[in-house]
Amino acid sequence: MGLDEPLFGGIESGGTKFVCAIGDARSAALLEREQFATGDDPRAVLSAVVAWFKDAERRHGALAGLGVASFGPLDLDERSPSYGFITTTPKAGWRNTDFLGPLRHAFPGLPLGFDTDVNGAALGEGRWGAASGLEDFVYITVGTGIGGGAVVRGKPLHGLVHPEMGHIPIPLVDGDSFAGACRIHGRCWEGLCAGPAILARTGKPAEELAPDDPAWNIVIRSMAHALATITFVLSPRRIIVGGSVRKAGRLGEAEFFARLRRHHREVLNGYIASPALEVDAADPFIVPPSLGDDAGVCGAIALAKGATSEAQGLA
Amino acid sequence: MGLDEPLFGGIESGGTKFVCAIGDARSAALLEREQFATGDDPRAVLSAVVAWFKDAERRHGALAGLGVASFGPLDLDERSPSYGFITTTPKAGWRNTDFLGPLRHAFPGLPLGFDTDVNGAALGEGRWGAASGLEDFVYITVGTGIGGGAVVRGKPLHGLVHPEMGHIPIPLVDGDSFAGACRIHGRCWEGLCAGPAILARTGKPAEELAPDDPAWNIVIRSMAHALATITFVLSPRRIIVGGSVRKAGRLGEAEFFARLRRHHREVLNGYIASPALEVDAADPFIVPPSLGDDAGVCGAIALAKGATSEAQGLA
Repeated sequence: MGLDEPLFGGIESGGTKFVCAIGDARSAALLEREQFATGDDPRAVLSAVVAWFKDAERRHGALAGLGVASFGPLDLDERSPSYGFITTTPKAGWRNTDFLGPLRHAFPGLPLGFDTDVNGAALGEGRWGAASGLEDFVYITVGTGIGGGAVVRGKPLHGLVHPEMGHIPIPLVDGDSFAGACRIHGRCWEGLCAGPAILARTGKPAEELAPDDPAWNIVIRSMAHALATITFVLSPRRIIVGGSVRKAGRLGEAEFFARLRRHHREVLNGYIASPALEVDAADPFIVPPSLGDDAGVCGAIALAKGATSEAQGLA
Repeated sequence: MGLDEPLFGGIESGGTKFVCAIGDARSAALLEREQFATGDDPRAVLSAVVAWFKDAERRHGALAGLGVASFGPLDLDERSPSYGFITTTPKAGWRNTDFLGPLRHAFPGLPLGFDTDVNGAALGEGRWGAASGLEDFVYITVGTGIGGGAVVRGKPLHGLVHPEMGHIPIPLVDGDSFAGACRIHGRCWEGLCAGPAILARTGKPAEELAPDDPAWNIVIRSMAHALATITFVLSPRRIIVGGSVRKAGRLGEAEFFARLRRHHREVLNGYIASPALEVDAADPFIVPPSLGDDAGVCGAIALAKGATSEAQGLA
């Protein structure tokens, strides 16, 4: 990275940790990276984050912009008095937390990007990863929960609030009698397929399941229904599936994706005609993230870059 | 309408009829309107349509643009050799039909808009109807089939192909053992809730069902699952439900929408916090179309207006 490149800061805030990083947004390479436990005291972690970026500015020079890709729900409406807040999260201590306020106070006038963790990860994969060159795609994470972000014509989808794709109702696949693990919706997608649902189904975390455990078949077929739903509703050009569950432990990531693609095609049943959905397509329609576990914080840097361009009237 | 206002033509092509109209796109008012049976001979109906617009030009002056809002699937990719075609439709005679070609030939150089019937209807409702002033919303039709169009940041959603929302898999509601009527997906939304599904369930068309027929409860609760899915995935600011089924015959449209809103809120179960979703919201989230049966052809005129503005470099 050249000394004169503008530098951007990114904050990925998740349910268990905050990842902070600095980069020049010309590639996904990170100049520095640090993480903090999320905990239940927003003031404490936000102070630590601010202090880290202030230190980083002393080492590398002033930031040109800062981006936040956060767990939600978030208020993304710039006309709203609670813009920049985490709103109705059940996470202890974080309900109605002003996230951007302390950053604005610490870095007056600095352009600030703000979006969901999954919209951020989608942007990062679009700029440097598995959706490079595409304008319309979806990023899903399946881990402790399930979330989905979407990019439509090159920009993150917000609408009324922002997508909450993990909570869609999906049909039970044949042979599934699980009661569902979502506290709010029972048998929604998250309630059937996220990490805690797999643990509740089998008594084991996904990474310890035997490759022939029947739960894999149920979970992957359920996920195929959800991804088909997203295909029918949003018509994306690609779906990126990140998070821990897709690593699929002893089953293996390659086998997980092969089965997921096959079942997704079975659910569509030929109804959507596109070369992108053919089994021998040059680029698969359903793929893992290219940026791996950096997708989120890289996305936060992409949000910073976008906010800076917008402030300069370039976007 | 002033004599000097530019005039636009709109063609709404559906499975049973083509509706053609002329208007000035300053309001949803139509200057003239005609319809033709769709039939199974595209050349015949397209010739009749062209002849009608040629006659109309003699009466009213030259068109400034022409828009088509059509049943699909369509090729909407302007870089594709089959742009402007109806592609893989099961409708007899219409598979791989070049729709725009004959219009280009008859009206050389005229700006032509082209989109799905439901994207067109969404645009019409956005410009003059139930989504006036909104940039992000969905238009659903529930009739012989189910389709959905979406407007995101003021423009129709295309992505890979275009949405095919009617075919999403949804859970069976308690007490529903119907095998489903969709020839391709069985128990998808269309297979559970479209007009032919109601006929197959009950032996009666929707408009003849008794208000206390248990099928109403099953159909409306199933629809609530589908609309919740769309809410979670697309985060629209409003969902417009058109088509014949929502008129709900002897049950009545007002009761149909009241139940649909109630069950939609039950499925969301408070997870998405927005004043727009409150039961006492000033404007309901789920509404019938304002333009009624003209939504489609008005949308085609909106597409014509959009194509003309784009050709003039205004969009």
